Amino acid sequence: MSSSDLVELAKRRGYFFQSAGAYGGVSGFYTYGPQGATLKDNIENSWRDRFQRREGHREIDAPTVMPEPVFEASGHLDTFDDMLVECPECGESHRADHLVEDNTDIEEAESISIPDIEDLIADHDLQCPNCGAELAGEPVDDFNLMFETNIGPGSSSPGYLRPETAQGIFVEFPQLAEYARNQLPFGITQIGKAYRNEISPRKSIVRVREFTQAELEHFIDPTEDEPDIERVADVELPLYPAEQQAEDGTEYVHKTVQEAVDEGLVNEWVAYYLGVGKQWYESIGVDMDRFRFRQHLSGELAHYAADCWDAEAEVGGDWIEITGYAYRSDYDLSKHDEYSDDDFTIFKQYDEPKVVERATVDPDMSYLGPEFGGKAGDIADALEQLAERDRSAFEDEEVTVEIDGDEYTLPTEKTGFGVEEQKETGEHVMPHVVEPSIGIDRVIYTVLDHAYGEDEIEGETRKRLSLEPEVAPTFVGVFPLMDKDGMGELAREITDDLRAEGLDVTYDDSGNIGRRYRRQDEVGTPFCVTVDYEALEDDTVTLRERDSTDQVRVPVADLPDVLADLRAGETTFAELDAPTAEQ
Amino acid sequence: MSSSDLVELAKRRGYFFQSAGAYGGVSGFYTYGPQGATLKDNIENSWRDRFQRREGHREIDAPTVMPEPVFEASGHLDTFDDMLVECPECGESHRADHLVEDNTDIEEAESISIPDIEDLIADHDLQCPNCGAELAGEPVDDFNLMFETNIGPGSSSPGYLRPETAQGIFVEFPQLAEYARNQLPFGITQIGKAYRNEISPRKSIVRVREFTQAELEHFIDPTEDEPDIERVADVELPLYPAEQQAEDGTEYVHKTVQEAVDEGLVNEWVAYYLGVGKQWYESIGVDMDRFRFRQHLSGELAHYAADCWDAEAEVGGDWIEITGYAYRSDYDLSKHDEYSDDDFTIFKQYDEPKVVERATVDPDMSYLGPEFGGKAGDIADALEQLAERDRSAFEDEEVTVEIDGDEYTLPTEKTGFGVEEQKETGEHVMPHVVEPSIGIDRVIYTVLDHAYGEDEIEGETRKRLSLEPEVAPTFVGVFPLMDKDGMGELAREITDDLRAEGLDVTYDDSGNIGRRYRRQDEVGTPFCVTVDYEALEDDTVTLRERDSTDQVRVPVADLPDVLADLRAGETTFAELDAPTAEQ
Repeated sequence: MSSSDLVELAKRRGYFFQSAGAYGGVSGFYTYGPQGATLKDNIENSWRDRFQRREGHREIDAPTVMPEPVFEASGHLDTFDDMLVECPECGESHRADHLVEDNTDIEEAESISIPDIEDLIADHDLQCPNCGAELAGEPVDDFNLMFETNIGPGSSSPGYLRPETAQGIFVEFPQLAEYARNQLPFGITQIGKAYRNEISPRKSIVRVREFTQAELEHFIDPTEDEPDIERVADVELPLYPAEQQAEDGTEYVHKTVQEAVDEGLVNEWVAYYLGVGKQWYESIGVDMDRFRFRQHLSGELAHYAADCWDAEAEVGGDWIEITGYAYRSDYDLSKHDEYSDDDFTIFKQYDEPKVVERATVDPDMSYLGPEFGGKAGDIADALEQLAERDRSAFEDEEVTVEIDGDEYTLPTEKTGFGVEEQKETGEHVMPHVVEPSIGIDRVIYTVLDHAYGEDEIEGETRKRLSLEPEVAPTFVGVFPLMDKDGMGELAREITDDLRAEGLDVTYDDSGNIGRRYRRQDEVGTPFCVTVDYEALEDDTVTLRERDSTDQVRVPVADLPDVLADLRAGETTFAELDAPTAEQ
Repeated sequence: MSSSDLVELAKRRGYFFQSAGAYGGVSGFYTYGPQGATLKDNIENSWRDRFQRREGHREIDAPTVMPEPVFEASGHLDTFDDMLVECPECGESHRADHLVEDNTDIEEAESISIPDIEDLIADHDLQCPNCGAELAGEPVDDFNLMFETNIGPGSSSPGYLRPETAQGIFVEFPQLAEYARNQLPFGITQIGKAYRNEISPRKSIVRVREFTQAELEHFIDPTEDEPDIERVADVELPLYPAEQQAEDGTEYVHKTVQEAVDEGLVNEWVAYYLGVGKQWYESIGVDMDRFRFRQHLSGELAHYAADCWDAEAEVGGDWIEITGYAYRSDYDLSKHDEYSDDDFTIFKQYDEPKVVERATVDPDMSYLGPEFGGKAGDIADALEQLAERDRSAFEDEEVTVEIDGDEYTLPTEKTGFGVEEQKETGEHVMPHVVEPSIGIDRVIYTVLDHAYGEDEIEGETRKRLSLEPEVAPTFVGVFPLMDKDGMGELAREITDDLRAEGLDVTYDDSGNIGRRYRRQDEVGTPFCVTVDYEALEDDTVTLRERDSTDQVRVPVADLPDVLADLRAGETTFAELDAPTAEQ
């Protein structure tokens, strides 16, 4: 399906559309409509179930507006930039690296330096895509992608819309560690909005300025924690390692999680979550024939990532990233530990206290004072550091320390050097972080695209979304044949009963039944119930399945249980009694 | 429970805490911790079930950043202000009306004009609460409470963090009406973040700068749609009408929804949702003895509201608004209809076309032109308007129109006046809006406060949160007596099985069982399962209920079903076999 067809279908059927159309729309902002918002809820809940509840992780919900110091520490204030060039004629802003990519053979222009990009623009005579003016000689600037605002009156307290949900977790690590009773490993999830003030948003909900992330930060002790690989050992992974990408470009390596770990292809923690992820994508309807895990090339790795694999899906001929699986090491916690006054380590108690030898000094200040004057204090400090670093320096009769390039020598006996035994009950560990970071909007885009299909029904082309029952936003349509002779009343009663069961139901009594089915087929509704004259006599209704168009008669009283079981995957339509073909 | 005790408990047990504590915290921003985020999810899902799914309404999900024209139309850019006074000494900003309220007998100072507030500050010698400096003579300014930012590079496209989710629905009305096939009534919900850049946030999550709203906009045809009162007719409402508030201040009027409507106490649409709301608050654990519906006083009504009732809960001695039920009439849609190029009406088709008489004119321009020169066109327009307004003006031989104070008279025969019959197939209706607007954070605050209780267990005070099973963030704790002899393994298996059933489970094997129970009591976990030596012999475990501390033995294989039924309210603990008292 082409991306313009998908966007058209999404708008027509209530999945998503550009926001504020009444005021001309705003580039990079989309609204999920009556179907899309519930599809999104269902996908988020399914994610919670798989990545959070079943893994024993817990969720938090942090603000989207965060204060400046957080992003000084995280590096976003300095480095979360895109290259911007402004047209001297029409004033339109463009991403300089995209201009270069679109008009030359160069790929990944993002990693090229600004002066080189300026040269490339001049050398290739690149023009403004809006008005055609020459861009050669125009300055290329770094443009920070965070939306900025002010907290409270005045401008003394700048705030930023978070560029990733992750920082809302990292910055609260000291508190979160307390909830985990200071025991590693533990995992914290968050689902929420994140923002990138894109210079030129594109591809509808694939690259937007406001989007939804579902992130898990799994904090581990790198020296001893191991994932429970067994839980996902047999999951098959379509891997696209860096090496293959460089070589032939298309061959994937198919390995189970266990094999990928054993052969050292993927970091064990990352591999564990590739397995969890694969199970999840399959369950929500991502087509596994248009799916792969692609390893980041070394030049592509984010500043914080030690290893990273992207889950990618093929949509409308392009591969898009739908999840990043990164081993972030201790980058973020170390930064916050450094920039804030809080402790971002875990104190790991030893099973038994360890006895360690410590070299110490106890300088004779009655000697150092008269001898070195104002420098005496600094010399005492330097001696302490030297003792920790190099005990052998105290083996001779004299010892020398260097302060700001000057050397000071004194008799070793005046330093009070000695070695003591000390008991240590534990040590401070800076946790490492494994992070599956899911772009919910891109997952939605993929699920819709992969669910789309056409077939022939009675000689006419039928458009349908074969959404999985677990995520379909409308689970069942209820139709009276006509709204008369009590069929409407019965259909409305059934609607209420099914809603009370927690199912999303649409009631529709307009137009002929065939048209009503077609409408639900295109919306992606897995099941429809029709109340006909027979229903008034024997209290059974027709239950029709979307993909097969098969029908079966079900007693009205059984409907809530039958449909709840179908949704939970506890039964299949084929297992119901004697279905017959229908159009 | 005092509000400081609640805030302390909330932080200690992982419900909520001030954000970014590592950097000193930011006033008005809170993070929901591992318990709080799931409590919030559960409350939101329960709200969806009651206000959306069961009512047949649909949800949308719009961006939090919206462009300026939306708020020009909605009035927020002009009027969403608080009064700000800045201390000349320390520079701290204060809400001027709050200063007046806190230091005088005056209530509701928000509605006083700025010059009068300045006078009150001077007359009462009010001082800066921060440093004690005199504020008399300092200017009081309007401060707009929207967070402002820029969309894209430069400042040509200002954007605002939405002050209410509602505008994200109103602005998309033309599109949403299409999804409803242009049939009224229909309802659209949204749950999401909204923002108020408070001058002085207070009371932890009760008045914050970033909060979560759950809003329903029910669009109705005011001339013919009626709510289905029967569905909630018997729900008892504790009403606190404007009249009672003025008179005695404490007496509530207890009426059913049906009575409140019949006696004209409450608008029928508002009354319907008061009924729905009452059912919902009760189901999630709001104490009905500390709850009321308070009618807005006429001076208190928002600019858009024709009638408004607040659901209020008493928390720590104060009454706080947890929901506003407003009849917003056609205020918002009319504004967007006026400010944008789109049509915000519904075209209502008549059952049969109506034949109507229309008075028309067809002025003889060959007469008007020479006679009136440049004014001829204006006179023709004025004649057309006059014909629509007052046919009798054309009964005499001459007719007179007035333009900008000047009168122009001409022979009636030159106007081409006539009456024609026209067929009309329908008319444009501007829908009215009924809006229940729930503050999710305040509901959470209330539910926690009302759930708190203390009792005595074995001579010790026990603190517990009696959260409803439907919303409790941890539903069951699973404890091996000790992690040995296979009890740990069995407990972890049970944990996995219960999680696969969709239940939130915590596993805990540290400390004595009594302490583990106490911890879960204070977290609010309704049930605990203990795996003891007996479990290894007969495959039964102890299931313990939080509030009663009663216990019953349940076969391991039955646990998932038993607990799922307890959560869904399909069975009660008392109905399980032979519970025995336990500590």
